[in-house]
Amino acid sequence: MTLYLQLAETLGSRIEQGLYRPGDRLPSVRAMSIEHGVSLSTVQQAYRLLEDRGLAEPRPKSGYFVPAARQMPPLPAIARLAQRPVEISQWEQVLALVSTVPRPDVVQLGRGMPDISSPSLKPLTRSLARLNRHADARALAYDGIHGSPLLREEVARLLVDSGCRATASDVVITTGCHEALSVSIRAVCEPGDIVAVESPSFHGAMQSLKGLGMKALEIPTDPVNGISLEALELALEQWPIKAIQVTPNCNNPLGYIMPESRKRALLALAQRYDVAIIEDDVYGDLAYTYPRPRTIKSYDDDGRVLLCGSFSKVLAPGLRIGWMVPGRYADRVLHMKYISTGASALQPQLAIAEFIGNGHYEPHLRRMRAQYQRGRDLMIDWVARYFPEGTRASRPQGGFLLWVELDEAFDTLRLDKALRNRGVQVAVGCIFSASGKYRNCLRMNYAALPTPAIEQAVRRVGESACELLEPCEA
Amino acid sequence: MTLYLQLAETLGSRIEQGLYRPGDRLPSVRAMSIEHGVSLSTVQQAYRLLEDRGLAEPRPKSGYFVPAARQMPPLPAIARLAQRPVEISQWEQVLALVSTVPRPDVVQLGRGMPDISSPSLKPLTRSLARLNRHADARALAYDGIHGSPLLREEVARLLVDSGCRATASDVVITTGCHEALSVSIRAVCEPGDIVAVESPSFHGAMQSLKGLGMKALEIPTDPVNGISLEALELALEQWPIKAIQVTPNCNNPLGYIMPESRKRALLALAQRYDVAIIEDDVYGDLAYTYPRPRTIKSYDDDGRVLLCGSFSKVLAPGLRIGWMVPGRYADRVLHMKYISTGASALQPQLAIAEFIGNGHYEPHLRRMRAQYQRGRDLMIDWVARYFPEGTRASRPQGGFLLWVELDEAFDTLRLDKALRNRGVQVAVGCIFSASGKYRNCLRMNYAALPTPAIEQAVRRVGESACELLEPCEA
Repeated sequence: MTLYLQLAETLGSRIEQGLYRPGDRLPSVRAMSIEHGVSLSTVQQAYRLLEDRGLAEPRPKSGYFVPAARQMPPLPAIARLAQRPVEISQWEQVLALVSTVPRPDVVQLGRGMPDISSPSLKPLTRSLARLNRHADARALAYDGIHGSPLLREEVARLLVDSGCRATASDVVITTGCHEALSVSIRAVCEPGDIVAVESPSFHGAMQSLKGLGMKALEIPTDPVNGISLEALELALEQWPIKAIQVTPNCNNPLGYIMPESRKRALLALAQRYDVAIIEDDVYGDLAYTYPRPRTIKSYDDDGRVLLCGSFSKVLAPGLRIGWMVPGRYADRVLHMKYISTGASALQPQLAIAEFIGNGHYEPHLRRMRAQYQRGRDLMIDWVARYFPEGTRASRPQGGFLLWVELDEAFDTLRLDKALRNRGVQVAVGCIFSASGKYRNCLRMNYAALPTPAIEQAVRRVGESACELLEPCEA
Repeated sequence: MTLYLQLAETLGSRIEQGLYRPGDRLPSVRAMSIEHGVSLSTVQQAYRLLEDRGLAEPRPKSGYFVPAARQMPPLPAIARLAQRPVEISQWEQVLALVSTVPRPDVVQLGRGMPDISSPSLKPLTRSLARLNRHADARALAYDGIHGSPLLREEVARLLVDSGCRATASDVVITTGCHEALSVSIRAVCEPGDIVAVESPSFHGAMQSLKGLGMKALEIPTDPVNGISLEALELALEQWPIKAIQVTPNCNNPLGYIMPESRKRALLALAQRYDVAIIEDDVYGDLAYTYPRPRTIKSYDDDGRVLLCGSFSKVLAPGLRIGWMVPGRYADRVLHMKYISTGASALQPQLAIAEFIGNGHYEPHLRRMRAQYQRGRDLMIDWVARYFPEGTRASRPQGGFLLWVELDEAFDTLRLDKALRNRGVQVAVGCIFSASGKYRNCLRMNYAALPTPAIEQAVRRVGESACELLEPCEA
């Protein structure tokens, strides 16, 4: 990473964390140059980048300032949940969501789809084309069940960035993170077992619990700090929980990054009560701050964390390549992986390994992180502008998903219905709860480069919500 | 299909079925021309093809004759099995097999790997290359959970050949047949349930039963007629069986095609006892006879058959694209598919759909069927020549896998060990039984075009077996 980028990241995260408040004067170019031991032009480049990102505002002859506060919707509330394990419902709504395919006449804000039109992905498709042009028969053979050694090595190298010391032999390649999660659950639990989950929580992982016959115990989750450790401890005391399933980095759907101290505390709890942790890090590389956040796995000293990730969110979901570091559960994980899909496809593995090995991964990440961060700010702005008064919204620290909370009595299933003929699709909140909570919430995707059509679509969601809020008698 | 091919198939299957015996004179070219209303040159072309396949022998001035009988090893015995459901073992041996990747220094006869070096596959890799050269972003997006409509339509069209009337909407695309089988089991059974299986039976499907907590009830299986309906009926009477899992066409590992009347009888049994049938048709398109055999699904009138297949054996396993027709279990199948891997990769689906749509599928199949049939004859010949006296072998009617049975006391695990330093790998028999039977059997792959190195490898297997048979005291 070049110096000016590093500097911009440092200063940017200080601004984001509120060390400088709206209207504050930022350190002068000269002062920064001295403090960080870099040239004046490096500081100026960093400031220009921050300006692009809307984090700094130049004023003639006076230097850089933090822009005046935007009108920000308040944060979502923390759900008060009945603490008992439940069977998971909402498959119908999930099915409706995952049956969708891209359509030119619908702006799809519902799915967890990254922007795959970025030119920084070109080397990847070039690799895939080359693999096929040379009709390399090897790449169409069965791969070994563990996955390609080339990709496993690259994944192990990437893991260093999240503080994780793993070797290639610790890594298992999977068919997307979906398989990694599902295999993890099956490796750790038996049907009927209880798994503690964040609430709200990724619908895919919850449907896996449902499909495999587990029960979910929803733990209240803070939109800034993540899963409530206090509530979790109570639950561990009270129920025979087998595993804790969390997405601590760039959480889906809430967008927070769990503070490091809380990650360590969560691990300590798991150790005390001897339960496994299934850690979903599928969005971790898309954190807006540098360096990227650590995983719980990076603190794991007795192999109880099953770390799951994939290239679906950082590269492209159609590759269907995920990975996991299963720790002490490796044997059972391998068996479950075998019966799930056998070996994973080799061609995309080789293409991804080449993409990373040739140094294309980091620049691509940097580009996407910046794009998504701008997307977040715009999307929050639109929610503030177009949604009913009192609407709350998350402050994602990475990824490309915004969680929106409407009036408590609001029903997003009705909204979803109303939107069907208006060319917009969102993810309804109830699928993020085991028991159909969050009917007043929805999740929207801001991955795509902003266009008037997307703003128009978000506006339509907001306006439809306003219409539905009007009393029926009016 | 051209006339001469059709004629060759007809006459070839008459010879194979024994209507003409070794040494018999075959009908004259002129007689055939009159009987079938085709030109003399068409008949001559057909005969030349039969000659290539070793089914006809020209004798100067006398016409064509059935070649003298080759020395054929006797058929494998039918196992006498204890009829009680068992937990499945042998994961270690399966893991050893599926951990292998192609190595230049080892002749791998163990895996169910087709020949992917055929030039008739070129249009497929060209499609994949083109999809990536144009960097068609759509193909890297999430696909809908059901799979690509294009491929579903092509699969529905192919199904006509096996007598199955299905529309695109009845088809679900999966990540290989492995996923189709695993999803089927989970859609139909609960942990602890009993599933009746052929014995011997495909290790992948059995490991799925194991991983999902089911028990297997092994049913004696005839190397010509398939699963014993009599034993199956007894078992259905005695045990609360939930599903019957069979591979009636080009069975793995025995290679038989179950006669149609027995397929219908099997379905009738399933209806009478109200159990589901999980039908694996992954090798069905590779039957050596034309037209290809029907599936049990083709007789299914109440949706109880879950038909599973893939392009792994007919095109290439690295594509990881399978399909299923789940009948009345569609809803649950879709949920299980979702939690298994989400949607399957779109690029290979589009490439396969194009391959079929452009008419490349049939010619490729014809080529591979002919190659595999020749491979079978050679492999049986080698077994007769190089293996210990008394060795038995199957007579595969399709596919590319030969089942070999050695002396009852023989231990192929010891053979496998001995072969490790001799550059050959086979599949040991015990993985084809839920309870570790068939230790005296092994499975060999004859998909690759024969080379002296392959003959040498088979010879080494045979010779190693002979050495191990010698009394230790000697």
